[in-house]
Amino acid sequence: MSVDKGNFGLVCLKGASQVFFMENAITGALFFLAIAYSSFTSGNWATAIGAVLGVIVGTGTARTLKADPQSYASGLFGFNGILVGIALPTFIANSPELWIYIFVGASISTIVTSAFSATLTNSWSIPGSTGPFVLTAWLLLAGAYGFGSLHVVGEAPKLATDYALGTVSIPNPLELLQIFFRNIGQVYLLGDWVSGVIILVGIFIASPIAGMAAVGGSIIALLTVLIMRADPSVVSQGLYGFSPVLTAIALGTVFLKPSGYVFIYAAFATVATVFMQSALDVIMAPTGLPTYTAPYVLTLYLFIAPKSRATPHPHSPVGANFLMDDK
Amino acid sequence: MSVDKGNFGLVCLKGASQVFFMENAITGALFFLAIAYSSFTSGNWATAIGAVLGVIVGTGTARTLKADPQSYASGLFGFNGILVGIALPTFIANSPELWIYIFVGASISTIVTSAFSATLTNSWSIPGSTGPFVLTAWLLLAGAYGFGSLHVVGEAPKLATDYALGTVSIPNPLELLQIFFRNIGQVYLLGDWVSGVIILVGIFIASPIAGMAAVGGSIIALLTVLIMRADPSVVSQGLYGFSPVLTAIALGTVFLKPSGYVFIYAAFATVATVFMQSALDVIMAPTGLPTYTAPYVLTLYLFIAPKSRATPHPHSPVGANFLMDDK
Amino acid sequence: MSVDKGNFGLVCLKGASQVFFMENAITGALFFLAIAYSSFTSGNWATAIGAVLGVIVGTGTARTLKADPQSYASGLFGFNGILVGIALPTFIANSPELWIYIFVGASISTIVTSAFSATLTNSWSIPGSTGPFVLTAWLLLAGAYGFGSLHVVGEAPKLATDYALGTVSIPNPLELLQIFFRNIGQVYLLGDWVSGVIILVGIFIASPIAGMAAVGGSIIALLTVLIMRADPSVVSQGLYGFSPVLTAIALGTVFLKPSGYVFIYAAFATVATVFMQSALDVIMAPTGLPTYTAPYVLTLYLFIAPKSRATPHPHSPVGANFLMDDK
Repeated sequence: MSVDKGNFGLVCLKGASQVFFMENAITGALFFLAIAYSSFTSGNWATAIGAVLGVIVGTGTARTLKADPQSYASGLFGFNGILVGIALPTFIANSPELWIYIFVGASISTIVTSAFSATLTNSWSIPGSTGPFVLTAWLLLAGAYGFGSLHVVGEAPKLATDYALGTVSIPNPLELLQIFFRNIGQVYLLGDWVSGVIILVGIFIASPIAGMAAVGGSIIALLTVLIMRADPSVVSQGLYGFSPVLTAIALGTVFLKPSGYVFIYAAFATVATVFMQSALDVIMAPTGLPTYTAPYVLTLYLFIAPKSRATPHPHSPVGANFLMDDK
Repeated sequence: MSVDKGNFGLVCLKGASQVFFMENAITGALFFLAIAYSSFTSGNWATAIGAVLGVIVGTGTARTLKADPQSYASGLFGFNGILVGIALPTFIANSPELWIYIFVGASISTIVTSAFSATLTNSWSIPGSTGPFVLTAWLLLAGAYGFGSLHVVGEAPKLATDYALGTVSIPNPLELLQIFFRNIGQVYLLGDWVSGVIILVGIFIASPIAGMAAVGGSIIALLTVLIMRADPSVVSQGLYGFSPVLTAIALGTVFLKPSGYVFIYAAFATVATVFMQSALDVIMAPTGLPTYTAPYVLTLYLFIAPKSRATPHPHSPVGANFLMDDK
Repeated sequence: MSVDKGNFGLVCLKGASQVFFMENAITGALFFLAIAYSSFTSGNWATAIGAVLGVIVGTGTARTLKADPQSYASGLFGFNGILVGIALPTFIANSPELWIYIFVGASISTIVTSAFSATLTNSWSIPGSTGPFVLTAWLLLAGAYGFGSLHVVGEAPKLATDYALGTVSIPNPLELLQIFFRNIGQVYLLGDWVSGVIILVGIFIASPIAGMAAVGGSIIALLTVLIMRADPSVVSQGLYGFSPVLTAIALGTVFLKPSGYVFIYAAFATVATVFMQSALDVIMAPTGLPTYTAPYVLTLYLFIAPKSRATPHPHSPVGANFLMDDK
């Protein structure tokens, strides 16, 4: 495969060096040494392990999505992932779900890198730089406040909406079925599960494949909130499900051409939408405004923007036209 | 008129179905049934009536503004309006002013749809989807906290700045005249009405038509805050008027070619700016930052962006280049 | 020099009139009269002096950076600066550092004007208008809450993070050296100064010039926080330095072609990044989210966007295509 320019390990080391705009494996190795030294003195090895996981997942995601080979080989898809991998364990206590979170987060950071590249860089020559890390890590850390399986610690001040969930309470099958339909009805802000049934019938009449995607989206959302232990009182109203349902239909059947590949991409985006839901709920809480379909909208925009081989701004000098002399 | 493709009622039904990316009148009718069922069980019929009003006004605005005929006929200018029409009565108690608010809000949502289309979609093939609904409904709900005629209820947490205004107190003519001039002076952050007089003279010297627009903008802002019952202590300082004055000049005489049509568009934008003022005041309040001219800037950007026949992203599959195989 | 169309004073007067979209020196002079009258009645002459300083610095920055001559001559690079010059002394008490702040702020507003122009205007014909003033004045006022040398007063509500710093405590040389290295290590969220040493070695191995820029960025950041009196407990962790270090490398050596001119531009951007750091720390504080590298990212995007002679939207009517009649 022509994308696989260079050894994967070397690409990861270069990715580490790209945080400082370098493309040098030795420099990257030294940066890992600095990270390891800091973990050694602080005793928190999760950050060093997170760094390794982050750069591997970020780089691997670019390879899987067949991103621009030159950018890939330069490590430009790895430096946001490594920062996500360090930032999350810095602010979230260790737990099995943390590592799911880092994995998903580093992968999202590569998609966001490509999205920034296809917009800011392609249109305006503005390099995305560590912007994708900032956006991804903000959203994921905010989202962590909403999940019982993740505990925000460290230097981050506590949000008003922070809460600790007790034991996992899996709703009974009838409740699950009702939530399944409320996840659909809430797209129209309808809390009644019967309304969800009517709407799903309407979707199937117009497009069976979209109906299937809606079903899949609602189920994926349910599984994700159960694993991450979101607030049951919010989940039961269907408020964690309507944005993922829209994402599943939009990315799985409407805006991308359906295929096995697109199916997996859409399923991943659906999980990401659940994280965005928690993040935006937390971020919007102090404003007194509901999030509406913003989690879906944000996910859609970020996941639809990447273009074939979208190229992050290379870290080499470009002419500073603004500053040039008058001829 | 060639824009009027298809029966208006059918276009509205298709608009309802577009919330789920469908273009199917029967599906849309089923969605209305779901909405009506939910109103029946909750007893709150305002949401169902709001849905009907929202899709009619959103679609009608596109027709009035002669938007892209194909997009119009597909219902792509109706689905954000219907969501605005449901969301506002979900979070705001019934009152006569609520219905003005829904009318203006659904209309704004169509202009925002066109603005997203002319930017995100045209440049980057990112569909606006329900983004215009989210933005419009956020701003209008936030703005409701600032108007005595609108009472936020339901699930939305109360903002610190929420306040209930007592009786309407219409300022006396002299006070109204001073506010009229402060509305102009505050563009320069000047609270003195004499400064407003000097500035208005300066505008008339440079451009009589711009001076007329400034006069009109200040009067429209005054009328709007009196009807919506904004906080009199803020109104009297001219703080509700300076952004609308800028909008009236900018859209009525500077950036669009003056005509009867443009005059109405600018007057509508001026009213919208008053709503943005309340919204941004509420949203910015916890940050300790004044809103400056942001209400004008936001309105200008959204109302100037729409291009002739700006086409929202059609809800059909596009190639997923990012995911394509390597050739 | 062909940029210098017209008398500098006349250009500044026109700049004042451009707040209301006019290009008329007499109108601008009347606006200054209105500002002076307001200062006379309020007794706060800082706003009038700030207005003069703001328009001179904003216009002068455009001249120094050789911005589009026609836009420059029309005063389009002066009206955001004048508003910054009025807004800052309206909300911040007089002090020597306030005038540094206005100077830097008015200059930033011209760069932001050019950035908006190169993006919003060039791609979508959306005029930046007073948007650059709003963004710049928001960030600088927010940042003022974080500096002991600036005291926010007046109508702006106090932020939770507001604090008054006591006497200036200059860290001893050893502490300064450790902060110098922490400023580098914190890019990787590492608080240990030894990690910063290792990282700096890694940078020098890959690129000596980037290493020099890192050294310069860390020093400039240190000097700026000492002058502005930022919170010593935050400074000592290196949290005020890592974004400026990235800015210094990015703008001084990576994305612009190194030259004496670029060196000064990058140094100025590095100072601006320290202000952004304080601003974003204050703005993000209530959300419970750290700022990560956002101060660097924001500065980079704004300072890299300007293109040669980027032209702000002229304040003259353009066709309102959206509203045109159907042919």
